[in-house]
Amino acid sequence: MARNIQSLERAAAMLRLLAGGERRLGLSDIAAALGLAKGTAHGILRTLQAEGFVEQDAASGRYQLGAELLRLGNSYLDVHELRARALVWTDDLARSSGEAVYLGVLHQQGVLIVHHVFRPDDSRQVLEVGAMQPLHSTALGKVLSAYDPVAHSEVTEGERKEFTARTVCDTEDFESLLALTRARGYAADVEETWEGVASVAAPIHDRHRMPVGAVGITGAVERVCRKQEPGEPGDPGELRPELIAAVRDCARAVSRDLGASRF
Amino acid sequence: MARNIQSLERAAAMLRLLAGGERRLGLSDIAAALGLAKGTAHGILRTLQAEGFVEQDAASGRYQLGAELLRLGNSYLDVHELRARALVWTDDLARSSGEAVYLGVLHQQGVLIVHHVFRPDDSRQVLEVGAMQPLHSTALGKVLSAYDPVAHSEVTEGERKEFTARTVCDTEDFESLLALTRARGYAADVEETWEGVASVAAPIHDRHRMPVGAVGITGAVERVCRKQEPGEPGDPGELRPELIAAVRDCARAVSRDLGASRF
Repeated sequence: MARNIQSLERAAAMLRLLAGGERRLGLSDIAAALGLAKGTAHGILRTLQAEGFVEQDAASGRYQLGAELLRLGNSYLDVHELRARALVWTDDLARSSGEAVYLGVLHQQGVLIVHHVFRPDDSRQVLEVGAMQPLHSTALGKVLSAYDPVAHSEVTEGERKEFTARTVCDTEDFESLLALTRARGYAADVEETWEGVASVAAPIHDRHRMPVGAVGITGAVERVCRKQEPGEPGDPGELRPELIAAVRDCARAVSRDLGASRF
Repeated sequence: MARNIQSLERAAAMLRLLAGGERRLGLSDIAAALGLAKGTAHGILRTLQAEGFVEQDAASGRYQLGAELLRLGNSYLDVHELRARALVWTDDLARSSGEAVYLGVLHQQGVLIVHHVFRPDDSRQVLEVGAMQPLHSTALGKVLSAYDPVAHSEVTEGERKEFTARTVCDTEDFESLLALTRARGYAADVEETWEGVASVAAPIHDRHRMPVGAVGITGAVERVCRKQEPGEPGDPGELRPELIAAVRDCARAVSRDLGASRF
């Protein structure tokens, strides 16, 4: 197999560097972080700047990501078939559940949010399209890990960080959770990623029965989980069954729209 | 000045090609469009694919933009100071005006939308963050053209397309419009870009008094413009003064938040 182009790989590494951590870096920092001579790093940065992929702050001389990435990212969404098919169904799900809806796909070692419908209650909310979620602790991530073999390798080979006391990190426990997800057809996250937040998600399949994404709702644990009566037995984090049904209905509808057969 | 890196320039051209027009292209189409040998084009595409910047459809073998662009575009927004400062003020503007709010910055030959607050009426709306608007016909674009010399060169040197019968394309007329914009401190677009749609926008300045962006509202001409009584004289497209005031208040508030002095 032919080699990939080194200057392109270096440019991609620079963009990843600027996307994480500090986000505004000087030439020396960038060269040092990537193990490049300053002259080499400067040539790449200058070209990236000319193309709009990075911008240089006039006052400090530091580099940051450029506007062209936003424009191209938006074009990526425009051509995204899953997202286009899901628009109407996710709007309906937000309305019927009263919660925020997320549509996610596997990207690198996580879930990339490709669509987000705000919780329909006029509260101030931050759009998370383009944000990443962990595979092992979120409902979307567990669905992808349970159904997509590539996601499964990523999540089992990668580090599983303990975000809260409820995060499942142990390999055996995590595999049981994925088996449960496959048996039930949906996954839950009750305070495993964020304190006070619960979510439920279900898989989306395409016409080849391939798992192409996951859709789910996320909200305050007090709303998404069933109220327990004092003295009532059962898991305190039990999800409201009507929300599970609504999420699964949505996932089935999007799958059908993508050409998946009903059986 | 040292030369830019050719393989990077070619990679950027490929991404721009995939972002416009067809959006799913085969190797031969891409090589032909950029005047490259197929082997050269393939080497660049393979590297872009390995980095997540392009994806290849398994069935057709065609290439399209990749998910990494969405993730990087989102990171660009996270570090965008103007957008961060404007979040609260634009939410307030949407609430007080009852219309959709857009925040735009100059990018290449147009306005790049970096923030969009939906019209607060529960209707289905498409998020336009990352989308481009023309400089010469939109309220945001006219504000940037009037206040930012770089935008002014772009708009006067570029082609000014006639979108509707009301689009101002003639150079002299357009310059008068920009002079009017500077004199008034805001710009309007009454059906100059889209039939039935009107918008009004005002400039945002930073602590160095530099015009760094524009904020405005966009909505149905019936709501954004004043109702004329039968027989009443005046421009049929007169904007409602309370909306102009709300937009200018918002632009001033964001400018103050960026450190611009009040005088």
